[in-house]
Amino acid sequence: MTNTVTPPAASTTDPGRLMAEETAEQPDVWARVLDRAAGLDEVAEVLRRRDPRFVLLAARGTSDHAALYAKYLLEVRHELPAGLVSPSTTTVYGARPHLDGGLLVAVSQSGGSPDLIRTVEVAREQGGLTLAVTNNPDSELARAAELHVDMLAGPELAVAATKSYTAAMLTLFLLLDRWQGTDDAAAEALPAAGAAVLEQDGVAAELARRYTFAQRLLVTARGYSYPTAREAALKLMETSYVSAQAFSGADLMHGPFAVVERDVPVLAVAASGRGGDAMAPVLEALRLRGADVMCVGSKQAVARVGSGVVLPEGLDEALSPIVEIVPLQLMARHLAIARGVDPDRPRGLHKVTETL
Amino acid sequence: MTNTVTPPAASTTDPGRLMAEETAEQPDVWARVLDRAAGLDEVAEVLRRRDPRFVLLAARGTSDHAALYAKYLLEVRHELPAGLVSPSTTTVYGARPHLDGGLLVAVSQSGGSPDLIRTVEVAREQGGLTLAVTNNPDSELARAAELHVDMLAGPELAVAATKSYTAAMLTLFLLLDRWQGTDDAAAEALPAAGAAVLEQDGVAAELARRYTFAQRLLVTARGYSYPTAREAALKLMETSYVSAQAFSGADLMHGPFAVVERDVPVLAVAASGRGGDAMAPVLEALRLRGADVMCVGSKQAVARVGSGVVLPEGLDEALSPIVEIVPLQLMARHLAIARGVDPDRPRGLHKVTETL
Repeated sequence: MTNTVTPPAASTTDPGRLMAEETAEQPDVWARVLDRAAGLDEVAEVLRRRDPRFVLLAARGTSDHAALYAKYLLEVRHELPAGLVSPSTTTVYGARPHLDGGLLVAVSQSGGSPDLIRTVEVAREQGGLTLAVTNNPDSELARAAELHVDMLAGPELAVAATKSYTAAMLTLFLLLDRWQGTDDAAAEALPAAGAAVLEQDGVAAELARRYTFAQRLLVTARGYSYPTAREAALKLMETSYVSAQAFSGADLMHGPFAVVERDVPVLAVAASGRGGDAMAPVLEALRLRGADVMCVGSKQAVARVGSGVVLPEGLDEALSPIVEIVPLQLMARHLAIARGVDPDRPRGLHKVTETL
Repeated sequence: MTNTVTPPAASTTDPGRLMAEETAEQPDVWARVLDRAAGLDEVAEVLRRRDPRFVLLAARGTSDHAALYAKYLLEVRHELPAGLVSPSTTTVYGARPHLDGGLLVAVSQSGGSPDLIRTVEVAREQGGLTLAVTNNPDSELARAAELHVDMLAGPELAVAATKSYTAAMLTLFLLLDRWQGTDDAAAEALPAAGAAVLEQDGVAAELARRYTFAQRLLVTARGYSYPTAREAALKLMETSYVSAQAFSGADLMHGPFAVVERDVPVLAVAASGRGGDAMAPVLEALRLRGADVMCVGSKQAVARVGSGVVLPEGLDEALSPIVEIVPLQLMARHLAIARGVDPDRPRGLHKVTETL
C-alpha cells in the first residue's frame, strides 16, 4: 500500500480553510449536478436495455458510504437486490464471481484506487455490466468500466472528503431514478436546503465545543440515514482523532449498547420519515440509560433529545442524507480546530490512498 | 509467558463462567457439526437444483459476522456474487426487492428476531429461495424459510455469543462446499486446532491484562479474517465496554489511521495465507507510526509484531476464522474480569434482541 499524493500545505494561520471552502461549496455543486441530470439519460438508457437483476457496489472510505446510500435507494426505492462487495476478494484472493445479469458499480472520487480498478476489470471479464462513478473522467477507473458518470464535484483538495461525498450521492440518486423511470423532481429542493443548513455553522461550532475532550463517541441512525452515521464517524476520526463508532440503531442494541455511559456521548441522526421514526425506541433506550445524546434531525427528534441541529422541513427522506451530513462536516471541522488539529492536515493520511 | 489466571470453577458466583464454558465447548461443537455434514446434502441438493445466481445474507450482531464470513466463502471459494442486506429496508421501509434467481440466507442463533423473519417472508414472496441457519429448528425463522439448517451449537446461555458463532461459520462452510461440490475434508482438522488454541488461555489472560485501562482499541485484519476483527471488536465492547473499532486493513488506511496513537492499542489478526500476507504493509505502517500492536496469527506475523497468540499451523486459510476468534473470545472474557465486569452479565444487554 502506498500513499502517493501529498496534501497541499495548508496555511498555519487558517486551519481547515480547504475543508471549510469545500463544505460551503456543496449547494453549488448540487445545482450543477441537477443541471446536468438529463445528461445521465444515455447511461440510464443502457441500464434499462441491459436490465440487470442485481447490483453490487464497490468502494472504499467516504465513497463506500455513498455506495451504501445507493444500496438503500436500490432496495427501497427501486426494489432491486443490492449488496456491497469487498474489493479484497478480487485483489487478495483472485476471486472471479460470475456476474451475468448483474451490475457492478464502483464509486471513487479519484478513480485511481488499484483495487477498485481490478474489481471492475474482473467484473467485466465475468459478464457483468460495469459502471464507474468518479470525480475524474480521465481516471483509470472511469476507463476500465463500460459506463462512466462524472460526479461533477470539481477539484477536491481537502484530505477529508466533503463535496465529493454528497455529489456522488446525488449523482447516484438521479441516475437510478432515470434508469428506473422514477420522478426525481424532489431533488430540486436540495440546494436551498443545503444553504439553510450551512447558515447553522454557529450552532455546529457550539455543539462541537462540548466534545473537545471526548475520546470516544457513538454515532447512530437507521435506514437512509445510516450512511450518514458511518460518514460522520469517519469525518470525526480523520479530522479530530476521536474514536467515533457508527452503528445502525438496530445493531446498537445487539452488543455495542453496553459501551454507552456518560463519558461516551452519542450523536444520533433522526430525520423526518420512517428511518427517523424507527430511531424513537433507540433514543428512548439511550435516555433511560442516562446517555449524553445530541441529535441532527427533525424538530421533534432534536426537541426529544434536548440539543442538536434541526434539519430543514419538507425534504424527501431518500434525499435527506445529502443534506444531513453537512452539519456533521461542520462539526468535525470545528471539533478538530478546538482540539488543536488542522483538519486539512490530518496525521498519517493522504488524499489518495492506494490499497491493493 | 506463564499462566497466572485460574480458569473459573463451576460456581454460580463465578463471573464469566457461562462464557468460559461455552468458549471451551467449541471443539466438541465442531466435531458434532462435522459428524452431521452428510445431513446437509438434502439442502445442498435443493440449492444445486434451483441454482441461484446470487446470494444475499441477512443477520444482526454476531451472526452478521458469520454471514460476512459466508460472503467471503461465496465470492472467493465459489465464485458467486454475494452481499449483505439490511433487514431495516424491509421492516422500516417495506422494501420488496425482486429475488427471482437469488438466494436469501438468514443467520440467527435464536431464530426469533422479528426483522429477520419479516425479511425472509418478503424474500420468499418475491421469488427468492430462502434458507435459515439457526440454533433452534423450532424457531419462527426456521419455519419462515423454505430451507433450514441447524447450527447444532447446543443451548447457548451466555449473553456474549461464542460457540454459536463458530458453529454457524462451520455449518455454512460445509453447506456451501456440499452445494458447490468442493472438497471439505480440510475441516476435519478444526477440533484439534481449537483444542490447541484453548490451551493458550494463560497467554490470552496475560495479553488481556495489558488492556485493563485502555478505553479504545482498534482491531484490524484483511480478507477471510476481517469477520474475525469485527467479531472480536463486538466481543470486547459487549463484555469489557472498551470502544473497540474494527477496520479491514485496507479501510484503516482510508481515514481511521489518523486515530492511531500510543494510547489506542491495535489488535491485528494475520493468519497464514493471502489475507495475512496482505496485512504485512499495514503492520509496517503501524510500526512506523509507533503504534502498540498485538497480533493473533501466524508465527511470522506474531514475531514481526513482538507479542500475540500464535495460531496452529497448516490450517486452510478459509477455515482459519473458525479457530482464530477463540483466543480473542478468551481475551475478551479475561479483560472483562480484569476490569471488574461479569462478562455473563453485560449492562444493558439481553440474550435475544428484538429489533423491528
